[in-house]
Amino acid sequence: MFVKECSLGIDIGGTKIAAGLVDRSGHVLKQQTYSTPKESKDRILDVLRETVITFSNLAKEAGYNINGVGIGTAGQVNYDIGRIISGTSNITDWNNIPIIDYLKQYTSLPIYLDNDANTFAIAEYVFGEARGTDNLIGLTLGTGVGGGVISQGDLIRGEWGGAGELGHMTVNMNGPDCNCGSKGCIEVYASGTGIANRMKERLENLESTDLTEELKVYQGNRNQLTSKEVFSWYEAEMPVAKETINLAILALSYGIVNMIHTFNPSVIVLGGGLVREREWIATTIQEHIQHKGMSSLIGTVDIRLSKLGYDAGLIGASSQVWFQK
Amino acid sequence: MFVKECSLGIDIGGTKIAAGLVDRSGHVLKQQTYSTPKESKDRILDVLRETVITFSNLAKEAGYNINGVGIGTAGQVNYDIGRIISGTSNITDWNNIPIIDYLKQYTSLPIYLDNDANTFAIAEYVFGEARGTDNLIGLTLGTGVGGGVISQGDLIRGEWGGAGELGHMTVNMNGPDCNCGSKGCIEVYASGTGIANRMKERLENLESTDLTEELKVYQGNRNQLTSKEVFSWYEAEMPVAKETINLAILALSYGIVNMIHTFNPSVIVLGGGLVREREWIATTIQEHIQHKGMSSLIGTVDIRLSKLGYDAGLIGASSQVWFQK
Repeated sequence: MFVKECSLGIDIGGTKIAAGLVDRSGHVLKQQTYSTPKESKDRILDVLRETVITFSNLAKEAGYNINGVGIGTAGQVNYDIGRIISGTSNITDWNNIPIIDYLKQYTSLPIYLDNDANTFAIAEYVFGEARGTDNLIGLTLGTGVGGGVISQGDLIRGEWGGAGELGHMTVNMNGPDCNCGSKGCIEVYASGTGIANRMKERLENLESTDLTEELKVYQGNRNQLTSKEVFSWYEAEMPVAKETINLAILALSYGIVNMIHTFNPSVIVLGGGLVREREWIATTIQEHIQHKGMSSLIGTVDIRLSKLGYDAGLIGASSQVWFQK
Repeated sequence: MFVKECSLGIDIGGTKIAAGLVDRSGHVLKQQTYSTPKESKDRILDVLRETVITFSNLAKEAGYNINGVGIGTAGQVNYDIGRIISGTSNITDWNNIPIIDYLKQYTSLPIYLDNDANTFAIAEYVFGEARGTDNLIGLTLGTGVGGGVISQGDLIRGEWGGAGELGHMTVNMNGPDCNCGSKGCIEVYASGTGIANRMKERLENLESTDLTEELKVYQGNRNQLTSKEVFSWYEAEMPVAKETINLAILALSYGIVNMIHTFNPSVIVLGGGLVREREWIATTIQEHIQHKGMSSLIGTVDIRLSKLGYDAGLIGASSQVWFQK
């Protein structure tokens, strides 16, 4: 009997844990979603253990061989020792967890762990829009902005795996404070949180006579405003929303020029909820960068939108298994 | 007879070509300096050929074996094919030169070519302040600002060798135009040219009653003003000069925080004429960055001043021979 190959991907987020078997082409064969337990990190580890056992059995029944387990998580990861250093504040106690050592008690498969921005870059390299080049950058634009860089075929990790914090690249040293401690980072303009915050500032400064009825509602309840509203107002051509989104794209374009000057990549892939199905963002950035920076470096870079879709996290986690080989 | 090992380094600059034999510890054994021929690139290639032949004989007489030839040059280099892509405008026709193929006609030694910012980083890794770490950044602060990055022991080159243009990292997207096409790059604040230009702007805006006699001379002859005068006025505590140098160091600090977020290095070495014997610049930047950016990444980085001295270019060129091994 011919045994087919696949990998087990597990994507750990603040709300849900997505797990699934993914084949060598990046297609999800079987998947399951669990609510992320809120009680303690031990309950999360229980879910991971059960996931590995359940999918090992599922694979066997379906005639698939699992080549390895890839785990992606928010936060900072020490890749070398397979430990989560400081996770997202959305997950209870999600720090200092020797996750690989723990799971090795229950499976003999090779296990890989990385942060979800790095796994996104790996997935684009192995399965996605950056196949065929060894020099690429993946940017995830969601609540925050994450980055992963593959240079000459290797993932840039640095001293302990903390490299690639591209969302925390200052493009305006006189800009708004960022929660990282610096100022005017890409993230304060071009993340979901950043877009909402910049829009709130503009609302605060508008005279009440300039406010539409719709905006008046949000002026009293600014905390309810998210990037979703800003994008819909942008599409409706509301001037303050257009200014906010245009600034986000401009700041991101300057950041991308910095990355191109730094890494000489040939492809930059944009992913995450903020850009999903918004091909025009990639097109606008591609136009912006042509007029900035060194033409010898900028001229040969393609800005592309990820096509991994809603399962990007899971597919990214699984892709580590093929990247290592 | 015991044959000692050395390498031949050749540093090609706009004014002079420095060549010399350098031992495995980075000590210069013999060196010679030539004026860079102004007539044509062929005359420069003649000098390189003569250099290789002369030093091969010198090494033989002194009982040294040359392990290889390392060439450093200003401008952009395609490392893979050993070709200068676009050199400095200071050197006549210094572009599109297959320098390695040319020299191979005259020597059987292995030959390496890279730009002088990369060779600086390699020298700090092999001989200098970054020995013992595999994750470091070298920044050369002179007329311009150059960068070289070694990550996990490999030099970051990117798609064709153009990576590491760290001087062209925007830290203020509303800042002054840079000659690279972008705005507010590190180089417009913290290079020799940038410091002089920012000082000239300040002079232009000063009322004549605010000008000292010394400054009045320069207000009429702004083009004669260089970073050297600005530094000496800084040391004499002249307010406009202090503002200019403080801004240079602040912009450089933001840029360095960006680099730390991007690469997770453990050492950043500053070199070049602008920082030579100015240990206080490294100290000031070290203090600045503690209050900016992600503490998990910033906390473990040392900012150090290069100790390679005036022969840094030559030593850097030669260090490629040991890096390759």
